[in-house]
Amino acid sequence: MAKLIDGKQISADIRAELHEQIEQWMAKGNRAPQLTAILIGDDPASNTYVSNKMKAAADVGINSKTERYGADITEEELLARIEALNQDDSVDGILVQLPVPGHINERKVCNSVSCDKDVDGFNERNVGRLCLDMNTLIPCTPLGVQELIKRCQIETFGKNAVVVGRSKNVGMPIAMLLHADGRNDTCAMDATVTICHRFTPPEELARFCRSADIIVTATGVPGLIRGDMIKEGAAVIDVGITRVTDPATGKTKLVGDVDFEEARKVAGHITPVPGGVGPMTVAMLMKNTFIAAKNLASKKVQN
Amino acid sequence: MAKLIDGKQISADIRAELHEQIEQWMAKGNRAPQLTAILIGDDPASNTYVSNKMKAAADVGINSKTERYGADITEEELLARIEALNQDDSVDGILVQLPVPGHINERKVCNSVSCDKDVDGFNERNVGRLCLDMNTLIPCTPLGVQELIKRCQIETFGKNAVVVGRSKNVGMPIAMLLHADGRNDTCAMDATVTICHRFTPPEELARFCRSADIIVTATGVPGLIRGDMIKEGAAVIDVGITRVTDPATGKTKLVGDVDFEEARKVAGHITPVPGGVGPMTVAMLMKNTFIAAKNLASKKVQN
Repeated sequence: MAKLIDGKQISADIRAELHEQIEQWMAKGNRAPQLTAILIGDDPASNTYVSNKMKAAADVGINSKTERYGADITEEELLARIEALNQDDSVDGILVQLPVPGHINERKVCNSVSCDKDVDGFNERNVGRLCLDMNTLIPCTPLGVQELIKRCQIETFGKNAVVVGRSKNVGMPIAMLLHADGRNDTCAMDATVTICHRFTPPEELARFCRSADIIVTATGVPGLIRGDMIKEGAAVIDVGITRVTDPATGKTKLVGDVDFEEARKVAGHITPVPGGVGPMTVAMLMKNTFIAAKNLASKKVQN
Repeated sequence: MAKLIDGKQISADIRAELHEQIEQWMAKGNRAPQLTAILIGDDPASNTYVSNKMKAAADVGINSKTERYGADITEEELLARIEALNQDDSVDGILVQLPVPGHINERKVCNSVSCDKDVDGFNERNVGRLCLDMNTLIPCTPLGVQELIKRCQIETFGKNAVVVGRSKNVGMPIAMLLHADGRNDTCAMDATVTICHRFTPPEELARFCRSADIIVTATGVPGLIRGDMIKEGAAVIDVGITRVTDPATGKTKLVGDVDFEEARKVAGHITPVPGGVGPMTVAMLMKNTFIAAKNLASKKVQN
């Protein structure tokens, strides 16, 4: 039976560590790290995500603020507001909750956030730096997956890893962190990595998964990864999260991409959904905000 | 017996096409595209590379200039010179021949070239844009590999591809172009991609290669890819180029990563070394310079 990767507990550990590190840092005379979120419109899911992030910030000792704008804000107004936050020395991290309304160019918005304050790691320059294995702010979910693998001491060096899904915020950066050179700044994991996606034939997906020591799946397709696709003892990290209706009870619940009940019988390690990767994303956002605060403070000292 | 991918002929075709396109473009009143190369020190190999590029430029109707500096040029002087070229409206493409001397930060130099004139595609912002499947100047060798695959009508959609080598200028961007979504700006190739590297165990490398429809190897390890590692009918693209001494004759010759004589008996398509990918790199530099010239001209019209 697989060892459960308890993302809730691990993220609580990380938040506790961060809390202590931030207290020590402030004891040296630094102000509290500060995170500003921009929330546009009134989407209930976005609202919940942002308030969870703000709650986590308070828990670790990060000051936070949510700026709310109507869905009719113009792109120009939004970019001007982000630029003001870029210039504001009291702000360390800027987070624009996605998606933005259709009349606003999302890529332009992501690129407008100063690289130094880009705690989501979505600025194209930071993406470039990540893909070049350079020191940068790394997107929170990929960083959370890397942290889970490291904290569970799952061996990756020279191992086979399969990443299922090629999204630019999750699958692609995870593939980068898994395959790249561990001696470089991102402390990547030196695995042999196969990137599978919607056009990988099902029988090939199964074949690649069966020879994988690590499977990271991020597709939003419930049940895609079956128990018979998993090698005995493999680590299975499920980034998928989909709300489905249980036909038996009529109730809805959250599920991942993996058939958890089958998979746990075969895998060596497995993340539950919910309670696996999910809580790590928020913890990594806090970590990134603290990194940004430290970098900005040391830049100020240098100037 | 494998069909030979004649990179020399294909690159000649591309240069001829470019020549015609550039003539047509100039007939509309545009000036000739312009490429400036910066060559530092007196490394004979760098010297040869740059003069080959300048010769190719002349052939297709691109004006070119080589600026030569002593190995004692300071980083500050070099960056100032690049900035002057960035600002110079008569320059469309800037190429800094690598490597630069050890006292100069190569990454800083690559990032200092304006994204619009970065015909090598090495600016971190352009790397980010490539990895996000956005319209950008793509490094010449990966672009040449993509072009060879397309011109030889090698099917990639849903096929298995193996990239051997994870360098940031070749392996990584090739993996990006092979696996990503064909509907996006880079017209990527929708293959399932496995990235192998120095820490992939030899037996696993062989296993991945044997199930690959396309193998792209870029390691500089002669003989790494043997005939028995190739699936019947697969396409084999050899980016490796190493000078070795023939023990029989004592003469030196250039070889790739693939055991060519063995591999050609099994593969469906194969590139020779030399004469495969090599000539494509220079042709793609010309293509990038013309793209840069057109983009800059249309920006001027917009302003």
